[in-house]
Amino acid sequence: MPDRIYNFSAGPATLPYSVLQQTAKDVVNFQDSGMGIVEISHRSPPFAAVIAEAESLLRELLAIPDNYKTLFLQGGASSQFFMVPMNLLAPGKKASYLNTGVWSKKAIAEAKLFGEALVPYSSETGGFRRVPSQGENQIDPASEYLYFVSNNTIYGTQYQKMPVAPDHVPLVADMSSDFLSRPIEVSKFGLIFAGAQKNLGPAGVTLVIIRDDLLERAPASVPTMLRYKTHADKGSMFNTPPCFAVYMVREVLKWLKNLGGVAAIRDSNEEKASWLYQVIDDTPYYRGHAEAASRSRMNVTFNLPTPELEKKFVAEAAALGMAGLKGHSSVGGCRVSIYNAMPQEGVKTLVAFMRRFAAENPA
Amino acid sequence: MPDRIYNFSAGPATLPYSVLQQTAKDVVNFQDSGMGIVEISHRSPPFAAVIAEAESLLRELLAIPDNYKTLFLQGGASSQFFMVPMNLLAPGKKASYLNTGVWSKKAIAEAKLFGEALVPYSSETGGFRRVPSQGENQIDPASEYLYFVSNNTIYGTQYQKMPVAPDHVPLVADMSSDFLSRPIEVSKFGLIFAGAQKNLGPAGVTLVIIRDDLLERAPASVPTMLRYKTHADKGSMFNTPPCFAVYMVREVLKWLKNLGGVAAIRDSNEEKASWLYQVIDDTPYYRGHAEAASRSRMNVTFNLPTPELEKKFVAEAAALGMAGLKGHSSVGGCRVSIYNAMPQEGVKTLVAFMRRFAAENPA
Repeated sequence: MPDRIYNFSAGPATLPYSVLQQTAKDVVNFQDSGMGIVEISHRSPPFAAVIAEAESLLRELLAIPDNYKTLFLQGGASSQFFMVPMNLLAPGKKASYLNTGVWSKKAIAEAKLFGEALVPYSSETGGFRRVPSQGENQIDPASEYLYFVSNNTIYGTQYQKMPVAPDHVPLVADMSSDFLSRPIEVSKFGLIFAGAQKNLGPAGVTLVIIRDDLLERAPASVPTMLRYKTHADKGSMFNTPPCFAVYMVREVLKWLKNLGGVAAIRDSNEEKASWLYQVIDDTPYYRGHAEAASRSRMNVTFNLPTPELEKKFVAEAAALGMAGLKGHSSVGGCRVSIYNAMPQEGVKTLVAFMRRFAAENPA
Repeated sequence: MPDRIYNFSAGPATLPYSVLQQTAKDVVNFQDSGMGIVEISHRSPPFAAVIAEAESLLRELLAIPDNYKTLFLQGGASSQFFMVPMNLLAPGKKASYLNTGVWSKKAIAEAKLFGEALVPYSSETGGFRRVPSQGENQIDPASEYLYFVSNNTIYGTQYQKMPVAPDHVPLVADMSSDFLSRPIEVSKFGLIFAGAQKNLGPAGVTLVIIRDDLLERAPASVPTMLRYKTHADKGSMFNTPPCFAVYMVREVLKWLKNLGGVAAIRDSNEEKASWLYQVIDDTPYYRGHAEAASRSRMNVTFNLPTPELEKKFVAEAAALGMAGLKGHSSVGGCRVSIYNAMPQEGVKTLVAFMRRFAAENPA
């Protein structure tokens, strides 16, 4: 294998090479301290500077308003599935969930432990090939919040426009797989969360952006570590944070800022996705899973004429240094994950391979 | 600063230098895959091998019986403070806690959210200078478990012999700060947990060892991610684990095995601690915080004649490449953390400095 391949995995996923090289230095000797970043006290000034810069870069890149807190938590997005209703949904109250795939279904199941979960939209019967268009569904105005998953990795669907909710119903979004891939208007949301391992860094840290007033909603029965307020009050340092993951997030955010921020990466991401969808639209050889209006800019999912050809496609691509193209077991086929850190050159190489493969392997 | 100093921090703490050097390679290009360890899919065979080896090394090093599961979780030891009673303590039931410091107090507070927390022993009024001796306290035989903290970093106390509980009352131990520092008889315990960032690896992963029968105790109201059984059933891969931290744990466990395992490291740790306590016992200049029978082999805590001398001591040591000697704010003075990865040479250097400093700076 060459020193570096193109990794199209859905997550954990490719990270910027320059960030990896910096990390390799810092993991042994951080800022010439004679200690690695994994060894320094989380209460030390050097680490305090790391987490403070990670937060301020994030706030700057997404233009997060002052009445929102940003938290670095553990437990993955899966822990947010229960933390959201545990903190925001009281017994006897209800919340609305848009069901667009496995991850929203899991979130709905956890919500039912705490209150009523309404599901005003589901694309399950159609194989989760689409997300609702803006205003397509009626949301109960008595909902404590409206929950949705902005990008669905498994099916390759993504909201082009965010859902709208009745006044006073905050939006809660699982943005794990498209966080920081495009500008968002944070003030439209009550809570946003994202596991790091797509666009943000390594697995092991979860970003939460939460509007101040929602911090106060948790019932007294919620354990200390599971209250958003605990972490907001202590700047994510109530207990030892996942220091290394926070450090890497900072490095990735610096990289993103140097590239021009989320608007610049959005443009690049749209280009990358358009090249892949062009191949899909040009030939019936590749059949896209998602409906055109719901197509994801992060995960492009498609089938080849036969499962045998799909297997051959994935294996030949891997031999050429393009890894991670096998689709999720629940939909099969192929999946190309093209998060922020996937270079345009990687997508161009793959697109050329796709055209060549189709020509050389007729159905 | 030199490339490497002696880091006596209480945690995150020093790790083996050889492990850091290997990590620096693997973070960029893991096993010549052309991908860094932070980038590979947690479902890929290379990562499956990492977590499997980490688990098997741990089982081998501690001779963990077959009727125990080992879990790699997130959320720190602080999350175990509530997960233990959430899973093991039903409403109307009681559990017993030995109160030997801040960490047991925090655990007691969380237990009260779920049931009754009995405290048959507390050394709080004496400043947490000791832990109980074996059999010193009566444990209510109706307790669901007996909880204790095996080593108390802040005060420098440690159980030389583990507590005993009435038959059918499982021991639950927070071993965050002395896990793997000495052999333990796992079969005496119902549940053991430890944050990684002392003897095991970087912050961001928590080890749990749990006896099979306790997996079944959680009430139906417990969210999926908070049930030990969820993670036990899926080999800690129910959701994306903190892959990098698990990888580093594996590297540290390999290092420990090569050193001769926990019995060998116990001997080395006892030597290191004995050199420090010898200085404390040799001169009234250094006054140990812990009672002699409760002295920790992991954290040696002491005062100098005045706070000014303590400040000077910490600063001069730091200038000589010995960092992290300031005591915890709640007890003041100095603290020397000498976890597994602190080389004997580091302790010898510090001991020589302590003797020199006392001679050169009379009270």
